Amino acid sequence: MNKFMQIAKECAQKGAHCGEGGPFGAVIVDKKGNIITKGNNMVLANNDPTAHAEVMVIRESCKKLGTYDLSNYILYTSCEPCPMCLSAIIWANIKEVYYACTREDAGKIGFRDDIIYEYLEGKNKDLIKLQQIDREECIHAFKEYKENNRIIY
Amino acid sequence: MNKFMQIAKECAQKGAHCGEGGPFGAVIVDKKGNIITKGNNMVLANNDPTAHAEVMVIRESCKKLGTYDLSNYILYTSCEPCPMCLSAIIWANIKEVYYACTREDAGKIGFRDDIIYEYLEGKNKDLIKLQQIDREECIHAFKEYKENNRIIY
Repeated sequence: MNKFMQIAKECAQKGAHCGEGGPFGAVIVDKKGNIITKGNNMVLANNDPTAHAEVMVIRESCKKLGTYDLSNYILYTSCEPCPMCLSAIIWANIKEVYYACTREDAGKIGFRDDIIYEYLEGKNKDLIKLQQIDREECIHAFKEYKENNRIIY
Repeated sequence: MNKFMQIAKECAQKGAHCGEGGPFGAVIVDKKGNIITKGNNMVLANNDPTAHAEVMVIRESCKKLGTYDLSNYILYTSCEPCPMCLSAIIWANIKEVYYACTREDAGKIGFRDDIIYEYLEGKNKDLIKLQQIDREECIHAFKEYKENNRIIY
């Protein structure tokens, strides 16, 4: 078994045993194999629905390294990232991810990963009411941003 | 213009002017129209690639209310939520969302919202290397979780 995945699994089990959140763990390492951060799902402990293991280690690694760009780092996670985590991984510029269990495995123990994936593929459209209003009034903020050549992360 | 969207827009502009992050703002209100939290993109200020406006107000509202369940609240955001934020909204059980600018508008000023949406629809598959390993070694943590009837959030 991959040694970093072993650590991710141990984090998953530790977090679940302590009641901190679901059984999900993750590790971020550099290309030399040094561990930057390890962590687990903290949704229940932190009352934070965004505190999935991958988001926790991304936030913590960025804090440690003083950057929002993790393009030189590798992520190991005990379960296939949900769409929130996968998008967070892309926003963080991580290019290499290893995962163990699947979204279907997560679905079987009661988590909604597969439902959210299906929603993003165009199914289950009644899951949430999402309505556009006031575009003309808000687009000005975007034009202003572009004109000022602000940093794009 | 909707009064909550007006506030989301002002947050977007304030955050961009201060260099805290992209021009995105969001507000969470209860069904009586009381504002719980307002906020803006803080990616640059916090060195946190997950600190989008919607994630910021979800985290902050959960903290204020002492829950990870926002099913009785409504979210207003100055731009269509990216897949990370949309998934965070679903994980938080928010059922009603109003947005102003679109993913294409965000794309035009340099943000990757539309690229991530396309990735999740099955395109741009070379955006990231995502590989499965060690499922058999990790699935045990899931079985253990289910057997113990842990809380599903």
